[in-house]
Amino acid sequence: MGEVNVRKLFRRLSCALPALVLLSGGAALADDTVSTIGARALASSWGYDFLADLTTDIGPRMAGSKAERDAADWAVARLKQAGFDNVHIEKFPVTYWARGAEEADITQPRLQHLAVAALGHSAPTPAGGIEAEVVVFKSFQALIDAPDGSLKGKIAVIVQKTVRAQNGQGYGPAVASRVAGPSVAAKKGALALVIRSVGTDNHRIAHTGITLYDKDAPKIPAAAISNPDADLLERMAAKGPVKLRLKLDNKSTEHVDTYTVVGELKGREHPEQVVLLSGHLDSWELGTGAIDDGAGVAIAAGAAKVIADLGLHPKRTIRVVMFGAEEIGAASDAYEAAHGKEAANIVIAGESDFGAGRIYNAALPAGTLGGNDRLKFTNAPPPAGADFAKQLTAALLPLGVDMLRKPSEEGGADLEGVHEKDGVPIVDFGQDGTKYFDIHHTADDTLDKVDPAELAQNIAVWASFAWLAADSDVDFRALSAAAGATK
Amino acid sequence: MGEVNVRKLFRRLSCALPALVLLSGGAALADDTVSTIGARALASSWGYDFLADLTTDIGPRMAGSKAERDAADWAVARLKQAGFDNVHIEKFPVTYWARGAEEADITQPRLQHLAVAALGHSAPTPAGGIEAEVVVFKSFQALIDAPDGSLKGKIAVIVQKTVRAQNGQGYGPAVASRVAGPSVAAKKGALALVIRSVGTDNHRIAHTGITLYDKDAPKIPAAAISNPDADLLERMAAKGPVKLRLKLDNKSTEHVDTYTVVGELKGREHPEQVVLLSGHLDSWELGTGAIDDGAGVAIAAGAAKVIADLGLHPKRTIRVVMFGAEEIGAASDAYEAAHGKEAANIVIAGESDFGAGRIYNAALPAGTLGGNDRLKFTNAPPPAGADFAKQLTAALLPLGVDMLRKPSEEGGADLEGVHEKDGVPIVDFGQDGTKYFDIHHTADDTLDKVDPAELAQNIAVWASFAWLAADSDVDFRALSAAAGATK
Repeated sequence: MGEVNVRKLFRRLSCALPALVLLSGGAALADDTVSTIGARALASSWGYDFLADLTTDIGPRMAGSKAERDAADWAVARLKQAGFDNVHIEKFPVTYWARGAEEADITQPRLQHLAVAALGHSAPTPAGGIEAEVVVFKSFQALIDAPDGSLKGKIAVIVQKTVRAQNGQGYGPAVASRVAGPSVAAKKGALALVIRSVGTDNHRIAHTGITLYDKDAPKIPAAAISNPDADLLERMAAKGPVKLRLKLDNKSTEHVDTYTVVGELKGREHPEQVVLLSGHLDSWELGTGAIDDGAGVAIAAGAAKVIADLGLHPKRTIRVVMFGAEEIGAASDAYEAAHGKEAANIVIAGESDFGAGRIYNAALPAGTLGGNDRLKFTNAPPPAGADFAKQLTAALLPLGVDMLRKPSEEGGADLEGVHEKDGVPIVDFGQDGTKYFDIHHTADDTLDKVDPAELAQNIAVWASFAWLAADSDVDFRALSAAAGATK
Repeated sequence: MGEVNVRKLFRRLSCALPALVLLSGGAALADDTVSTIGARALASSWGYDFLADLTTDIGPRMAGSKAERDAADWAVARLKQAGFDNVHIEKFPVTYWARGAEEADITQPRLQHLAVAALGHSAPTPAGGIEAEVVVFKSFQALIDAPDGSLKGKIAVIVQKTVRAQNGQGYGPAVASRVAGPSVAAKKGALALVIRSVGTDNHRIAHTGITLYDKDAPKIPAAAISNPDADLLERMAAKGPVKLRLKLDNKSTEHVDTYTVVGELKGREHPEQVVLLSGHLDSWELGTGAIDDGAGVAIAAGAAKVIADLGLHPKRTIRVVMFGAEEIGAASDAYEAAHGKEAANIVIAGESDFGAGRIYNAALPAGTLGGNDRLKFTNAPPPAGADFAKQLTAALLPLGVDMLRKPSEEGGADLEGVHEKDGVPIVDFGQDGTKYFDIHHTADDTLDKVDPAELAQNIAVWASFAWLAADSDVDFRALSAAAGATK
């Protein structure tokens, strides 16, 4: 076994060991304040109550809808009531898309009704619908490989499955068909695209989600059918020709406002320096947006609320951001456009947007753990930032969270702009998403899918992080630069 | 510990022991033929293919519908092709009920759409729907206890939950609200009844099922909402007044034919004596009727097919019956009316109508195990029937099935008439129904919910039973009478 492999093995083993011992060469206990924050978060129902009320009093809140505006007003009132500072709405224009009646039926060899959902921002069908023979593709790649013109007059159907994984890694390969599939199919002559739901469940509930049209392709209607219906269609297609009838009656309205809600706990020494916690307030409209992303905004707000309730005033400002229009991909650029100028003062940012499953690992910006985030086999003094990392690692361990030995990579979708363009450092918390894609973007996204204890664990983790980052002087940007991780 | 308790304890322990040892005082091996039948059943895909094709080629098959007729013709062809004798259809008239468009919305305090399904044979609402304040009852009993006239102008809502249990025992207490609730609510002045779905899942899918109106009560519309929607409605109602809007557009047609399909393996010695295996071919129309009861007819036909495929010819006739109109409660009386006269020749009957979950226990008619089906602590010679019971017990053990020390009690719903009125002896196989009421009577009743290996285990059990009962002279009726179990 070469040296590299030994190191790898050691790194792998170290993940299973109390990480703080390895980090600092000695045992460390989480300090009293952060322990108190964690315990308070686990015992509090404020976050869950926030989520329960959001799903009950408001429910679905599609970007650009009246319901989204109601949700924003509701959140403003809730944050003010909770004692947040500088509570306000930041609005920006989007295209509002409203789902209408929708139907999908197999009409040949035999009538069978399918559970269907138009993809978000899909074009409608003509009023009478579209009826045509289907061409079934086992994967998106198979559609890409189909000859030009080969789908003329047909409905293309992609039946690629979504792989279940704890970290959600099955989503990426599957979602490409939803996002880019319609234009690929259109360019080959298809009248419409139907996909197997991007989801890991087997219920008669279809998964929606945004689709994006290429400028140079006809905008064909696009919809997802439930996974059991995709199975049925595949079985039928294996026996002979299948005809599908699709009716989608949705409408788009341009230049409608969407709303991002902000609340802060003002910092006592460096109020201009911001630790940013976020989620998104908008949701698809089939369910009540409990896991996507009511949970995320409840976690972000709940984390700050715990700190406020304890009468703690960190050096830096903790900012809670509840983004509007994440689901249609509009929040990231809008936030960057509005806040790029102050981005140097956003010392670190994170977004919770993967449900309420238990957090099992954490990743900090490059350099924060010391050097290039490799284990150090030296007796050199701990690098700058190591004290923060040591304290956070110690605080997260009793919550069941391992500190990863690799730098954070992806913030939430809404932080992409300020991260990519302005270099805002990112924190990542890995959640158990084993069941997330059973529910994601469906009518099934309802409160009962959230476990209050798991939600509280998320809040405890974010609150511990927020306190330590906001009450320190650690400069994540400088540490990343020193570690050679420049954007 | 008194003597009774010691006996109870021993009986309980005996369930965990190889039952044959206790039965006969010595080890017994299943004879070669029945072992071969079991092995062949486990290895065969005929039953699963039957079910897959039924759900794919036909799909939903509501009693009295054109689809049910298509299913009957399909089944006749399939049984003929499989070599069954005397394949035919027996028809009888029913009322056909067709679901129309249906909507349920909370309109106050805020519009939220609910997942809804009209109860089977519910009256429609007026064309514009019904909108009224709700009165929420935690249980059906609470509705029964409500004062007369107290629901005038209201929509009654029962939110009683269904308890999950391996043997399905949570269904009985919950289903009363579905069957009898509408007339109870109507007599107290309610405009409509809405119930929490009789089901154990938490998906946005409502469970339908037959409702029965009293003659002396107004026929008010009745529907089930999904369980997450019932949770939502309860949360809202805890905060203040809730209004519901309900629109159901269904239609009934009287005097329409339904179809029972029959096929036999003619007995070589006593063709007039019948061992009857059954399931029901009709289904609710929301799903494709895979677990309810495509599985049952696949199991009954599959069991007989295994015996036929091995070229075996038992002494008695094995009759496979695929009942029409079980779901609307019409098959039992119809079968009794048509076959009461020959009931003395139905030596034993059973129905598979609880999905395709693994069979874990079996119960035979009183007296079959000897005496009153209690354990015997004597050296007396084995009673008549004990040889059959010993062989069946030995055959079922390797399939993971315990022979119960108590007599069979309930046949399937469709055998109630010939059992209750004509004394036809019944065999019961207990299936694992832990997840059955997640799916039952919903759009989710699709092929993917059936595990091929579990279906094959069911077929192996029924085939083993059918062979041993049909190739014996055991007189279950006489044994029951001798055991004092008279109807």
